[in-house]
Amino acid sequence: MRIEAVDFFYLSKPEVLDIGDGSQDALLVRVRAGGLEGYGKCEAAPLPSIASLICPMSHSACKPVSASVLGATLDEPEDIRRIGDAVRTNSLDLLQADHTLSGIDMALWDLLGKRRGEPVWWMLGWPRALPKTPYFSVLFGDTPEETLAKGRAARRKGFRAAKFGWGPFGRGTLAEDEAQLAAAREGLGPDGILLVDAGTVWNDDVAAARQRLAALERERANWLEEPFVSGALDEYRQLAAHGSVRLAGGEGCHNFFMAKHMIDRAGLGYAQIDAGRIGGITVAKAVADYAAAKGVTYVNHTFTSHLALAASIQPFAGLAGHEICEHPAEPKPLALAITKNHLLPGADGQVRLPEAPGLGMEIDAAALAPYVLEVEIRVKGATLYRTPAL
Amino acid sequence: MRIEAVDFFYLSKPEVLDIGDGSQDALLVRVRAGGLEGYGKCEAAPLPSIASLICPMSHSACKPVSASVLGATLDEPEDIRRIGDAVRTNSLDLLQADHTLSGIDMALWDLLGKRRGEPVWWMLGWPRALPKTPYFSVLFGDTPEETLAKGRAARRKGFRAAKFGWGPFGRGTLAEDEAQLAAAREGLGPDGILLVDAGTVWNDDVAAARQRLAALERERANWLEEPFVSGALDEYRQLAAHGSVRLAGGEGCHNFFMAKHMIDRAGLGYAQIDAGRIGGITVAKAVADYAAAKGVTYVNHTFTSHLALAASIQPFAGLAGHEICEHPAEPKPLALAITKNHLLPGADGQVRLPEAPGLGMEIDAAALAPYVLEVEIRVKGATLYRTPAL
Repeated sequence: MRIEAVDFFYLSKPEVLDIGDGSQDALLVRVRAGGLEGYGKCEAAPLPSIASLICPMSHSACKPVSASVLGATLDEPEDIRRIGDAVRTNSLDLLQADHTLSGIDMALWDLLGKRRGEPVWWMLGWPRALPKTPYFSVLFGDTPEETLAKGRAARRKGFRAAKFGWGPFGRGTLAEDEAQLAAAREGLGPDGILLVDAGTVWNDDVAAARQRLAALERERANWLEEPFVSGALDEYRQLAAHGSVRLAGGEGCHNFFMAKHMIDRAGLGYAQIDAGRIGGITVAKAVADYAAAKGVTYVNHTFTSHLALAASIQPFAGLAGHEICEHPAEPKPLALAITKNHLLPGADGQVRLPEAPGLGMEIDAAALAPYVLEVEIRVKGATLYRTPAL
Repeated sequence: MRIEAVDFFYLSKPEVLDIGDGSQDALLVRVRAGGLEGYGKCEAAPLPSIASLICPMSHSACKPVSASVLGATLDEPEDIRRIGDAVRTNSLDLLQADHTLSGIDMALWDLLGKRRGEPVWWMLGWPRALPKTPYFSVLFGDTPEETLAKGRAARRKGFRAAKFGWGPFGRGTLAEDEAQLAAAREGLGPDGILLVDAGTVWNDDVAAARQRLAALERERANWLEEPFVSGALDEYRQLAAHGSVRLAGGEGCHNFFMAKHMIDRAGLGYAQIDAGRIGGITVAKAVADYAAAKGVTYVNHTFTSHLALAASIQPFAGLAGHEICEHPAEPKPLALAITKNHLLPGADGQVRLPEAPGLGMEIDAAALAPYVLEVEIRVKGATLYRTPAL
């Protein structure tokens, strides 16, 4: 079949708050071919991604993403790889393109799976989709009391693992961070798996990050995530050499090479990959294979919808021993409205991918409708983009 | 003073061809503060960059670039560094932001220089702007005969050095590439400095690149540029170990870390930095200092306008021994129309930066006017961007 349409939908809450919660808006992707539809989601700024889909060509290596997708053949997984390679070549100088491709790639896998009657994880070569241990992923509370309550909520909802991130952490005194970490541990209980996300707050300042290591060790944090920006490979490695807390990072990677460099050179214990940013399920799968070969544990990065969650687990669905899995704990109603079904933990506390074709998620167009923002982009009197009908 | 306005102008030829010539369109940046104007240029896809300037906030680390610039204080060079850091923090998850910041950073330096009556290179700490040896930068001809003519044109116009790139190179047979290289050498003459740009054609295929090394050595190419994409550090290093041809690369770097990794790990002889992509003059200066400390020669990447050229030479203006300088040889009339003055080689064949305040370039609004594309971006009925008056 040939790809007939690539449609982007900018969804948003009426009011977006200045907090580290990426579930306040969304960029939903729909691809159509052969009478079927596939869906994906870019974990990306919606408007620049829409612009990168439809912008006029600047030169041979700076084409709109749509130029490499529309009209392309889609019959085999290899076709999806070829389309991704074409985007990376034809949009080499269009920086946003990796984020834009990511949601399209998901939609292509979803569409191909529906066509073939196969789940994505099967097409990726996994004989089974193994159950994963979800962690309850939340922002730190503004106060230790709020954080304590969130830790207790995680246990009450059946999660043994929880991650606390962003918010005030790393922005105040060491004593304040210590109180936050103690509250998180208390709320989660002594046998809980405690994960901590610094949200790049120290940028590349190893000394600032080192100050927190003792408290992280005392509260038995299983990992410290993103002490630094993704490019700070040397700083990651220096910090990793300083303590017993394992480091996690990689959500900022927007191509295979960035992830490879982090795995090879940053001293990571965990490579966290966002399939909605790195170029989609295809690239994420290549990273999962590489991480496994190098003895680094692969983890999905997913803070938003269950469509993103279903897509982001596929790349390591069959990787035994890579068991932990990020699970959005407090997504905004918008994020939950995207799909009719949700990947909730079972009675055993584990999360399982659907056995249904494609991503196995059902889009809820009616629930989404109130969140769709009408966008129009005009250049030289011509309308290059107008929000399509959902 | 406080930054009052950041205006983007999308300029384009009526028809953009599918060739590796980035001078067919342009994104001009104007910043206003204290009754003065500064100008810069993003070497980036215009529409996605405009969208990244004005898009609604997605969350605390995905804000529009304008949020970190408008209203900011600008009195000292340190203010420009602070604004860049703010953009990288507040727009961490907005991939396009580095490209967008690049032109703004140039405009801020230009504006601050005009305010202080100082050239940018002086504010960067260089006691003098040294003359640079420009190389005539062109695409390979479609045939060896065309390439031969381009080489002769370089000498006729007073250039001893010339770079041939993109076009058919690396896309056909080895014999075809050998004929192109021989033609380039013949046109340039035996004493010419021959530079070759593969334009990432081999992606990360070391074997394909190796096949061309013998011909490059035979024709005494001074460097082989971008055999691979910027992330392929290991592949660069492997190729560098195979022959005597020095490697050049780095134009794809969009932050300091990427450039640092290339300098540290890719076996480069030359680090080519595009100030219009890496985050502006500020980041490019940091890379120039780092390259010099590591014994790698810094070179500007500039294929378009003389505004971009003036900005891109500033970071290494005072670096003795880093003498070679890319000079756009066949820019489209649009690119030449941007400024009234141009940085042409003097009688000695050298190029010199202006001594005038800021970048020392005068924008030609009247000449530009025919190239301005009217753009309008509307979200939810509100106009977020409309091309301002030039």
